[in-house]
Amino acid sequence: MLEQLAHVGRDPATNGYIRDAWSHADLELREWFAGEAARRGLDLREDRNGNLWAWWGDPSHRPGVVTGSHLDSVRQGGAFDGPLGVVSAFAALDLLKERGFQPVTPLGVACFTDEEGARFGVPCVGSRLLTGALAPERALALTDDDGDTLAEVMTRAGREPRLIGRDDETLATVGTFVELHVEQGRALHGPVGVASAIWPHGRWRFDFLGQANHAGTTRLGDRDDPMLPFARMVLEARAAAARYGVVATVGKVRVSPGNANAVPGQVSAWLDARGANERDVRELVAELTDHAAGAADDVALRGGIENGGGVAARGGAAGSGVDVSEESWTPVVDFDAALRDRLAALVGDGDTPAQILPTGAGHDAGILATAGIPSAMLFVRNPTGVSHSPEEHAEQADCESGVVALANVLEDLCR
Amino acid sequence: MLEQLAHVGRDPATNGYIRDAWSHADLELREWFAGEAARRGLDLREDRNGNLWAWWGDPSHRPGVVTGSHLDSVRQGGAFDGPLGVVSAFAALDLLKERGFQPVTPLGVACFTDEEGARFGVPCVGSRLLTGALAPERALALTDDDGDTLAEVMTRAGREPRLIGRDDETLATVGTFVELHVEQGRALHGPVGVASAIWPHGRWRFDFLGQANHAGTTRLGDRDDPMLPFARMVLEARAAAARYGVVATVGKVRVSPGNANAVPGQVSAWLDARGANERDVRELVAELTDHAAGAADDVALRGGIENGGGVAARGGAAGSGVDVSEESWTPVVDFDAALRDRLAALVGDGDTPAQILPTGAGHDAGILATAGIPSAMLFVRNPTGVSHSPEEHAEQADCESGVVALANVLEDLCR
Repeated sequence: MLEQLAHVGRDPATNGYIRDAWSHADLELREWFAGEAARRGLDLREDRNGNLWAWWGDPSHRPGVVTGSHLDSVRQGGAFDGPLGVVSAFAALDLLKERGFQPVTPLGVACFTDEEGARFGVPCVGSRLLTGALAPERALALTDDDGDTLAEVMTRAGREPRLIGRDDETLATVGTFVELHVEQGRALHGPVGVASAIWPHGRWRFDFLGQANHAGTTRLGDRDDPMLPFARMVLEARAAAARYGVVATVGKVRVSPGNANAVPGQVSAWLDARGANERDVRELVAELTDHAAGAADDVALRGGIENGGGVAARGGAAGSGVDVSEESWTPVVDFDAALRDRLAALVGDGDTPAQILPTGAGHDAGILATAGIPSAMLFVRNPTGVSHSPEEHAEQADCESGVVALANVLEDLCR
Repeated sequence: MLEQLAHVGRDPATNGYIRDAWSHADLELREWFAGEAARRGLDLREDRNGNLWAWWGDPSHRPGVVTGSHLDSVRQGGAFDGPLGVVSAFAALDLLKERGFQPVTPLGVACFTDEEGARFGVPCVGSRLLTGALAPERALALTDDDGDTLAEVMTRAGREPRLIGRDDETLATVGTFVELHVEQGRALHGPVGVASAIWPHGRWRFDFLGQANHAGTTRLGDRDDPMLPFARMVLEARAAAARYGVVATVGKVRVSPGNANAVPGQVSAWLDARGANERDVRELVAELTDHAAGAADDVALRGGIENGGGVAARGGAAGSGVDVSEESWTPVVDFDAALRDRLAALVGDGDTPAQILPTGAGHDAGILATAGIPSAMLFVRNPTGVSHSPEEHAEQADCESGVVALANVLEDLCR
């Protein structure tokens, strides 16, 4: 089934995927989901937030067991992150049917909308809206790179943005949620593992402010160049991450005006930081904020122009300094311990339970768990640990082990 | 007249100008030029490369004296860089008419196409094509951010791209060229000065290569993050520029894939370097290239993954390292010494000649000078030295002094 999706949203130059929420590629993927549901005689529902549900059995009177993941992608992402969980869900249902299994508890396949946040910057929009973790007003006002709001984009896709928000009716149908996902590091040694927790993680935006100017005629001493404190921040983030035993990444940078022949007026950089321990991540960011303010104040570094400097010094004399704002923060998610251990036993090799491991990646399963729905995750081994990249990969045999493991789990949970 | 142009291509969010070559704004500015020429009874010509010429007198039999500049802008640029020279040219002609002056030598106002290179990355496209300094095949293949070539863009604007290239017929009409321009640093102390030279300058592209990966799940030690050697390069460029007594700027950066939650696979940065002395600029770039290769090879810095490393190591094991390529190089331009001194005497205050100063900015006057046309530049004082920015400014009184100075120069040259 993954092969049916191989062409959707693929950039021929890189083989990476561009599957932004509500884009043409996303709509094509949603149609594919509808087709797979129809072919199996499943009852397709789209909730008010754009999440898709394909039901085997009627969950109106009895909460079901749901599995699934998402079909959207980070930009230039791989083929597995998201789709593997949806494809494996359908394949596990097929396997259960072959086994002659008839669910007493309704069984659902879910596809959550905009898990990656590639378009609007906020991840897990579909599941967050569903559980009420994201306010509808905030969601609708999010803008993409073209300046279009989520409200506009949903309207163009024929959806009704006024209806989004917490959806208790849909939530009531989900008794248990199990998400299968490709592992995204190299920590899983067997073919299939079980998640213990999702690391606390957050995203911060650093706006370094300076004075745009001519690159040829402005003497070094007359400059107020925000590229310099930005570069220092990048190096310091890495050093501090190693010190705190967490990960920190600068993966997105915006330079304004962005001309090769102009000293920039502003450099904005996004810091992603995560770790096993919430306090370590928080301390890293605090330290880095102080460091960036110091670098922004460092007249010798910036170029000689005295400036107002400091954090949130946007109103300062020359508009210089650095603004740091938290764009998102997700506390640690510990998955349901009983469910986790039950899955590890089912998925393990004989008497040896499967490996239990945390992850640094956010998932819809984490959002549902936070909302009080017993949730769990299965991971399929990633031989190189590469993810969010066209080189993301999982072996066919491991993917098949994942489907069998998922079928076993669903069979057990639906009994 | 500058006020008539104030609204064209202005970004209301910043008050900066976006006036890319052949854009809607550019076409509007060209129409304005045509109107100003018509209103004065000047003979308007557009050459095969899109440069505009408005003639007072017929230069077919006798080479003329030409003044002018350009109307396009860097992105988010100011109101003066370019337009001041064109507006002052028309204003100087008006002043000469008021004085009852009748040119024996034909007098022309020029507007060169795509001086800034904001759209296609190569500056002075119009004057370089005219003089043969830029090969037509190379120019036509240049692409903008949308992937459109110059050939396509010119065709859409109703021009014939097959005809571009060196134009001896037009060149033969230009006996002398004088460009008036706002000064772009703080080196000019009086209202009007005269250029001695244009610093040698060049643009280099540094492609730092690594491995795109997930920001949450990839351990620091499993990373090959090109953002880190890039950041080191930025800081080193600044330090080396101070050491060599030149200017070096990183004003444009492209991060791929550019997701906040992904370790980048590639960071491309453009280095602009200029100085009074060609050897110093060359040595700075050589040193920086070595430094970048060292940083790209620094396993501890990148994140622990061993890589092929080194300059032009694109074919290396992990595709890591750095590629450095020269995008443009312009040797020093020394303006005609006799013309320079004649202008300084004319423009000065009584017996004191005007200030003579070099500039770090490239200009069409430099391209024409290199092609052997006696050329000169007048600078109008810039109180803050800010340029290529919405805050670019010149005082009204200084602009008026510029017009008077230009009129005096033209009157003298046309005698």
